[in-house]
Amino acid sequence: MIDAELMELALALSRSAREGAPPNPWVGAVVVDDDGVAGQGWTHPSGGPHAEVVALREAGDRARGATMYVTLEPCAHQGRTPPCVAAIEAAGIRRVVASIRDPDERVAGRGLQALRDRGLEVEVGLGAHGVIEELLPYLWQRSTHRPWVRAKVAMTLDARVADRTGVSKWITSAPARERAHRLRSQAQAIVVGARTMEIDRPLLSARPGGVVSERQPERWVFARHPLNYCTPGVSITSESPSRFLDRLGTEGVLEILVEGGPTLLGSFLADDLVDDLHVHLAPIILGDPEATPAFRLPQPGLLSEALRLTHVATQTLGVDVELSLRSASALARQAAFEVELVKD
Amino acid sequence: MIDAELMELALALSRSAREGAPPNPWVGAVVVDDDGVAGQGWTHPSGGPHAEVVALREAGDRARGATMYVTLEPCAHQGRTPPCVAAIEAAGIRRVVASIRDPDERVAGRGLQALRDRGLEVEVGLGAHGVIEELLPYLWQRSTHRPWVRAKVAMTLDARVADRTGVSKWITSAPARERAHRLRSQAQAIVVGARTMEIDRPLLSARPGGVVSERQPERWVFARHPLNYCTPGVSITSESPSRFLDRLGTEGVLEILVEGGPTLLGSFLADDLVDDLHVHLAPIILGDPEATPAFRLPQPGLLSEALRLTHVATQTLGVDVELSLRSASALARQAAFEVELVKD
Repeated sequence: MIDAELMELALALSRSAREGAPPNPWVGAVVVDDDGVAGQGWTHPSGGPHAEVVALREAGDRARGATMYVTLEPCAHQGRTPPCVAAIEAAGIRRVVASIRDPDERVAGRGLQALRDRGLEVEVGLGAHGVIEELLPYLWQRSTHRPWVRAKVAMTLDARVADRTGVSKWITSAPARERAHRLRSQAQAIVVGARTMEIDRPLLSARPGGVVSERQPERWVFARHPLNYCTPGVSITSESPSRFLDRLGTEGVLEILVEGGPTLLGSFLADDLVDDLHVHLAPIILGDPEATPAFRLPQPGLLSEALRLTHVATQTLGVDVELSLRSASALARQAAFEVELVKD
Repeated sequence: MIDAELMELALALSRSAREGAPPNPWVGAVVVDDDGVAGQGWTHPSGGPHAEVVALREAGDRARGATMYVTLEPCAHQGRTPPCVAAIEAAGIRRVVASIRDPDERVAGRGLQALRDRGLEVEVGLGAHGVIEELLPYLWQRSTHRPWVRAKVAMTLDARVADRTGVSKWITSAPARERAHRLRSQAQAIVVGARTMEIDRPLLSARPGGVVSERQPERWVFARHPLNYCTPGVSITSESPSRFLDRLGTEGVLEILVEGGPTLLGSFLADDLVDDLHVHLAPIILGDPEATPAFRLPQPGLLSEALRLTHVATQTLGVDVELSLRSASALARQAAFEVELVKD
């Protein structure tokens, strides 16, 4: 295998840690000697070993003189686990290929420097585009100190989230709803608006494959008035979206999922707080002005001033379509990462 | 080249006739001898030679003993041009591979039989799936005696076709508007509703590449009251959509394009008269309940009764996305074609 394929493998491994690793970054690592892949690893849930250590353990003696491919710069500081650079040196790794630098201020190049100081060969930048896309929520939180905000809306082709009687079960098909549970599993917090809580009474739990995940996101409802109903275990906040994000960011939350309704989603959008919008579009039409719209902006304006996102990907989910859109500021920062995080 | 590739070539050639051939079907033909492709052709505009004759002319003497690949069963009747089967026999073609039978009642297997009667080897069915998809408007009109109805709507992500002041220029980007002109070029008639005519004052001409096409579709506006404005050259009808389609179908119109507004589109949709819906989705959000919705059904109902289409394709058009959807009845007939039109 060539360098690029080995980093692709490390990236694929990192995805296995996507749901378990947060609040740590989900990292993949591969140890390769002259005979091929000697060890593979991904980040274990918080408090468990980092990807590098898992791969080194699997490689055992084969790590001596070998190369490590790792999606993120190894840490040089003592956290809940000992620094990875020490483990890498102790195992006898000769060369480390790290896809990107870690913007975390406790790392920020110190990991790479520590490896060089210990006499290891170090390279940065291989496969950075794909790794940055994968790690965006982590990179975003570490550089803005706010969580990455995803919003998900399941709507008809005419952009309605419920019919005139409030019925929304089910606009989208089972594969789209399964995908929605995956999105919940990836977030550390889910938020909804007051009316959604009162009308839909959602559980807001992550149940991919129909099974309640072991790790569940925090659940929040935005409410400025006493609620008629609130699902047990769901916390209530009267903060502004902006202040809420500041607080969760400080607590180390990497990603939240905004599930609506239209007013909460509109207020996040109007304040440029939605980084990533997933629209699950069902091929059905209500054609009814009385049906609930998917988006309600606080101060709707003219076409020339309309809120503009960028379409980045499409996938089919059963009979439905998922459109992924990103904000201009998220894309700008992503582009900046591609410069900053590959500096050697 | 193998058989399947040669039929793919014939199909590709047929697309060159997509805009010029109607009201005739757009057909492609390839003549192949032992040395390879000897002649290629596609249907010339009405009154001009059919694809088979163009390919035979290019092949010249090489047609003797050769094979012809043609997307549609050759005609056996005298129309504005002499029957193709006679020309094929006269040129000395030994074997004809026709992708599908022609459902036109003047052909309907008689072309294939005439070739067999003349001692030629005949095969049917190769590449039928792709040819049926390409020729759907023609096949539809010949079997239902109504034109294939396409609808196109350019809308925001929240399914609005204009802001609260009526401004709709431009929701979609230049590549999407270019695509819209292509769709106009493929139709033989364009229809709009009365309010769209009065408010948008559309030219309704096909101007792909910014150039006014030589062949222009008929232009119609549905109006039950005297109009405050009507673009010169646009005809007014007070018929029901259903009666309008019966009339145009009888006149041999293969395809019409419904361009809105919401009420006309809604009435075509409610009567199951839209076969093919092209949604040009711009990644912008108005979030305004006062903005014009893309779809207004005459009797909007509940989610459980909502009008359901099937998503069949997605493509990006610059920053916008085109979703193609089809009605259940169009898909059912398309599936039936795949059985009926490959019978030998």
